[in-house]
Amino acid sequence: MNKKDNILIIGAGLCGSLLALRLAQRGYKVEVYESRPDLRTTDISAGRSINLALSDRGLKALRLCGMEEKAREICIPMYGRLMHDTKGNTFSSNYSGRENEFINSISRGDLNAILLDEAEKHENVNIHFNKKCKNVDIENTIAHFKDYKTKKEFSINADVIFGTDGAGSSLRKSYVSERKFLFSYSQNYLNHGYKELEIPADKSGKHQISNAHLHIWPRGDFMLIALPNMDGSFTVTLFLSYNEGEFNFENLTSEEKITKFFEKEFPDALTLIPNILEEFTNNPTGPLGTIKCSPWFYQNKTLLMGDSSHAIVPFYGQGMNASFEDVVVFDEILNQDLGDWNAVFKAYQKARKHDTDAIADLAIDNFYEMRDHVANPIFKEKRKIEMDLEKTFPNQYFSKYSLVTFNENIGYYEAMKRGRAQDKALLNLISGDEVHTHLEMTKDELVVILERVILETNTILEEDKIAGM
Amino acid sequence: MNKKDNILIIGAGLCGSLLALRLAQRGYKVEVYESRPDLRTTDISAGRSINLALSDRGLKALRLCGMEEKAREICIPMYGRLMHDTKGNTFSSNYSGRENEFINSISRGDLNAILLDEAEKHENVNIHFNKKCKNVDIENTIAHFKDYKTKKEFSINADVIFGTDGAGSSLRKSYVSERKFLFSYSQNYLNHGYKELEIPADKSGKHQISNAHLHIWPRGDFMLIALPNMDGSFTVTLFLSYNEGEFNFENLTSEEKITKFFEKEFPDALTLIPNILEEFTNNPTGPLGTIKCSPWFYQNKTLLMGDSSHAIVPFYGQGMNASFEDVVVFDEILNQDLGDWNAVFKAYQKARKHDTDAIADLAIDNFYEMRDHVANPIFKEKRKIEMDLEKTFPNQYFSKYSLVTFNENIGYYEAMKRGRAQDKALLNLISGDEVHTHLEMTKDELVVILERVILETNTILEEDKIAGM
Repeated sequence: MNKKDNILIIGAGLCGSLLALRLAQRGYKVEVYESRPDLRTTDISAGRSINLALSDRGLKALRLCGMEEKAREICIPMYGRLMHDTKGNTFSSNYSGRENEFINSISRGDLNAILLDEAEKHENVNIHFNKKCKNVDIENTIAHFKDYKTKKEFSINADVIFGTDGAGSSLRKSYVSERKFLFSYSQNYLNHGYKELEIPADKSGKHQISNAHLHIWPRGDFMLIALPNMDGSFTVTLFLSYNEGEFNFENLTSEEKITKFFEKEFPDALTLIPNILEEFTNNPTGPLGTIKCSPWFYQNKTLLMGDSSHAIVPFYGQGMNASFEDVVVFDEILNQDLGDWNAVFKAYQKARKHDTDAIADLAIDNFYEMRDHVANPIFKEKRKIEMDLEKTFPNQYFSKYSLVTFNENIGYYEAMKRGRAQDKALLNLISGDEVHTHLEMTKDELVVILERVILETNTILEEDKIAGM
Repeated sequence: MNKKDNILIIGAGLCGSLLALRLAQRGYKVEVYESRPDLRTTDISAGRSINLALSDRGLKALRLCGMEEKAREICIPMYGRLMHDTKGNTFSSNYSGRENEFINSISRGDLNAILLDEAEKHENVNIHFNKKCKNVDIENTIAHFKDYKTKKEFSINADVIFGTDGAGSSLRKSYVSERKFLFSYSQNYLNHGYKELEIPADKSGKHQISNAHLHIWPRGDFMLIALPNMDGSFTVTLFLSYNEGEFNFENLTSEEKITKFFEKEFPDALTLIPNILEEFTNNPTGPLGTIKCSPWFYQNKTLLMGDSSHAIVPFYGQGMNASFEDVVVFDEILNQDLGDWNAVFKAYQKARKHDTDAIADLAIDNFYEMRDHVANPIFKEKRKIEMDLEKTFPNQYFSKYSLVTFNENIGYYEAMKRGRAQDKALLNLISGDEVHTHLEMTKDELVVILERVILETNTILEEDKIAGM
């Protein structure tokens, strides 16, 4: 393990470009190969603007690499959810009772571009586009590529290979096909897929609905969401079953039926999406999958990072944040001077795996919460109490959402364990009529609730611990 | 869906032969193809006797097919666990406080043989051996085979194909490779592998240690177990990490080290295994994997059953029982006259999947319980209370183990949910000093405990339900 090692990174997406930048900053020689064209010079998304939620864990990673400020310039803060019912009525629910806790809508392409720019400033980094990795000989650390432009195949022999090539990772597939070790692996699909649509900017280039919120149209079995873009538009995503329920992707095949579906379920959104029929018909329907695997590494030779090791569903807005946090954790392990890549990879997976497993599970939970529970009275009462507690005791109470999203110094696993226990305590106290809330809660009333919630949460954690022996 | 359909079953192991028998009894025409030679005429296991635990769910399936009595003739009842410590001391722990609740050690080969014999009595069943399925064209229900004897390849065109070809199922692999639908799939390996050894019969052909128990040598990070065979021998299985801890499969490479390991950890077992060095060196080390997947079926064409759809680790003694229970559930669905295979397959998976997922998880839990917790004082106290409750209130109290093993009319999922809640209630009552036990509990004392446990269990279930909304 030394600075002269030839490091090969497969994939120059968000995780790969941040990793390349960080390794370059640490003095490593890095060659990066990306299957797609350079997104800074090619319009890949064919006019569609894809955005993501950037929050504190991702920002911490960007800070580590000196990129926080540049990223903030292209962020649109979202302070809460704005729920839309079938009549077009809305109600909002903040993400936190604390000020300055919000998430950010950011363009995937723009963020990727500033990371590539910064990485390329380092002379010890070379990024090669249009080079698709076909497979990896993990024993000999040789990656085989095809050049999409010249159609020629070629191989790169490296000392260490990082696979940051996303959910369909060629390095991960080589772990399966080379059969060098027992590889635990799972791919789990929801019965729902997603389709992207667009609310364009108004004539003066402004957002037509609040750009300070993540919009949700929760409908139980399906939902629509919308995140704002810098150009005044919103990217809208429909999450819907492939083949179950009255309306689904398989049976929404005629213009009449699509229109009827939106008129009935999302009348206010329908008026804002002028090209609904064209977009619905032409835009692809994507699957929603969770990928977990282990081990992530092979000896001192290869390592999976980001989505290639832990692809998750988008419902906690944590996919990019989790991948960026991988780079932070990896960087901390590098600081320990463990001496060889195998020790580094082992320590990295040991430090990281339980956290990425946790965010994968939390993201599935949030699928049900967003499409359904957000409109449930007990859930709404819970959120109201949590906002009051966070506002009144900003240093003492943190909801599960806050623990996951705004507390980057707590791992996802810890956030999940404490957050779930807290949710369980609160939901049971509310449904058992043991805590009561009203519009203007006094601090004295809230102190009683806070103490009760903490006590119940700790009891739940303690009882779970004993039951798990 | 009619009796003239050509049904092809891939795999004539335990599940495949029972399924063939049942479908034949219902009047279907069945062709069965098996990759291995006929185990009734070939000694496949090369002298080793492999046994399994048969309990009430498996027996219910055998009863359905009129095979219970024949199977009972080759069963050895095991009434409880007999634990061995490092000094050779033993203590026993019954599986149930009720009489007539026990599990059975049975030879895999002998049981398979009587099922094949019975299936072949039906003229609408043909079983073909040495025919290895290479892959399946699921769209056209054509299975491609290689004959291991003639080395020739051939294809079978069927109306419906059942894959009962075990954990390495070729039908399941075709689901992945044909990419006709989104296939959720997981394979998860424990860090432990297993190796089989033998305690031979004594000179008069008798068992050298109690044949009424399943023997366990629990050692925390690893364990040894032994199940009796009809010929007076025991099949012993060592469960040990591949590469962690002081002793593991990777570093137990010298005769000195193997001997030292057994002398230190299993001195009493060592004296009973005369060929320890030869067997340890020559017998293969097998992996311990859990496989889950969904969907199990493709349209009205193919269905996975048994291990091919849900392979589990052996620690609950439920692998064969779960596969046999598949046949019972499938038979119940057939009784509903749903009209076409697609409706049958769909109803079958809907009725069955949550139960096979549950037993997979319970089997992993039991790995930790068997190798570790069985020697823990709180766990031992829990088991003592449960035995007292089952003995005193045989119709009111059922431990998790009893729910899973002896209550074949409750699904695994229900057994898991109630059983886990009950375990949690009891462990917390014991460790909180809220229930007390002594050698001679009176019925009045036990009534108090029973009511307390039921109350706590129901509270836990209720609170979990509210938290899950």
